[in-house]
Amino acid sequence: MALFFEPGQHKQHGLPFNPFKTLVVPRPIGWISTMDAQGMVNLAPYSFFNGLADAPPMVFFASNGRPRSRGGGKDSLRNAEATGEFVVNLATWDLREAVNATSAPLPPGESELQRTELSLLPSERVRPPRVAQSPAHLECRWIRTVDLPCTNPEEGNHLVIGEVVGIHIDEALLTEEGFVDLSRARPIGRLGYMDYTVVDTIFSMPRPKR
Amino acid sequence: MALFFEPGQHKQHGLPFNPFKTLVVPRPIGWISTMDAQGMVNLAPYSFFNGLADAPPMVFFASNGRPRSRGGGKDSLRNAEATGEFVVNLATWDLREAVNATSAPLPPGESELQRTELSLLPSERVRPPRVAQSPAHLECRWIRTVDLPCTNPEEGNHLVIGEVVGIHIDEALLTEEGFVDLSRARPIGRLGYMDYTVVDTIFSMPRPKR
Repeated sequence: MALFFEPGQHKQHGLPFNPFKTLVVPRPIGWISTMDAQGMVNLAPYSFFNGLADAPPMVFFASNGRPRSRGGGKDSLRNAEATGEFVVNLATWDLREAVNATSAPLPPGESELQRTELSLLPSERVRPPRVAQSPAHLECRWIRTVDLPCTNPEEGNHLVIGEVVGIHIDEALLTEEGFVDLSRARPIGRLGYMDYTVVDTIFSMPRPKR
Repeated sequence: MALFFEPGQHKQHGLPFNPFKTLVVPRPIGWISTMDAQGMVNLAPYSFFNGLADAPPMVFFASNGRPRSRGGGKDSLRNAEATGEFVVNLATWDLREAVNATSAPLPPGESELQRTELSLLPSERVRPPRVAQSPAHLECRWIRTVDLPCTNPEEGNHLVIGEVVGIHIDEALLTEEGFVDLSRARPIGRLGYMDYTVVDTIFSMPRPKR
């Protein structure tokens, strides 16, 4: 037997929480660092995040809610648009508590970084810095923001799209043959509710031929 | 020590394959069913796939390459645009071989489904059917396609965006309290190279307060 319902009707079917995010899994975590015009650094995790294409390499993160007004919480969208740059830091098992700490909705002017032991390193091609403790980073130039429909007229759904212009990889992640061994990085992924997963099981399936 | 390079320069740094996709992980797999105007069903997996927003619930998959010309391989983009509908089927450990089989680049007119033991079920709100063996489905209405820059002038990068209009969940996945227990579904995710992961480890971190 299977349940069927339209979005928003889950409670009528015995589900206390909206299950949408539990069914689009596992989601990669874009741990995004940005910088505002005054040089203040913002760091926040986004699980509506992914690659978009290989040629050129592009990624997006979705900034939803009220990001364009100062009271709306996350500053990543405004900073990425203002400076045209952002950095994706790889979110790993060892950094899970710091990733979570930087998801706090802080008052304006207070940095998520103050709640962590993280330190920053300068980037090569963009101004926002990188998280020193993260073993891989994608330096990105903002390309465009796509505004999507939103059911709340006071809020907005925004896809922030960037092109990768620089890649950092800790050599400790690399095999002798030059492959990234993710079992050494143990990236974390987002599930539904308050749940996460960690990439511990890795298996391969060769692509089928015509 | 860390490597730094610009996209496309990995071989000069001893990396035989482009590592971009190994650093945006774990990626959820959108196993997308569509239907063409003649009623022929297409089924293909996309790992440039994710949710975009909650209100309303929206997802995307990226169809890259030459999808708008008949010889370009995957038909999901053309079908989604032509019919305005698609379905996301949850890709699980038990279905991993079928998911992989449906990634084959087939000649026009040949269905990926013929290579599998999968069967189809009708959807409730859209015409493309669902994979009967998958334990959860998101029925989607196409909203828009966003065309992105592409380094190859003969190809294109396209984000196909849809709104979720119906949700199916096998009751076997649900706890008594109405939560989706992903340990019963074991969704698979995409890593780099030919590698995949499976959601076997689940842990929770409560969201920090202000």
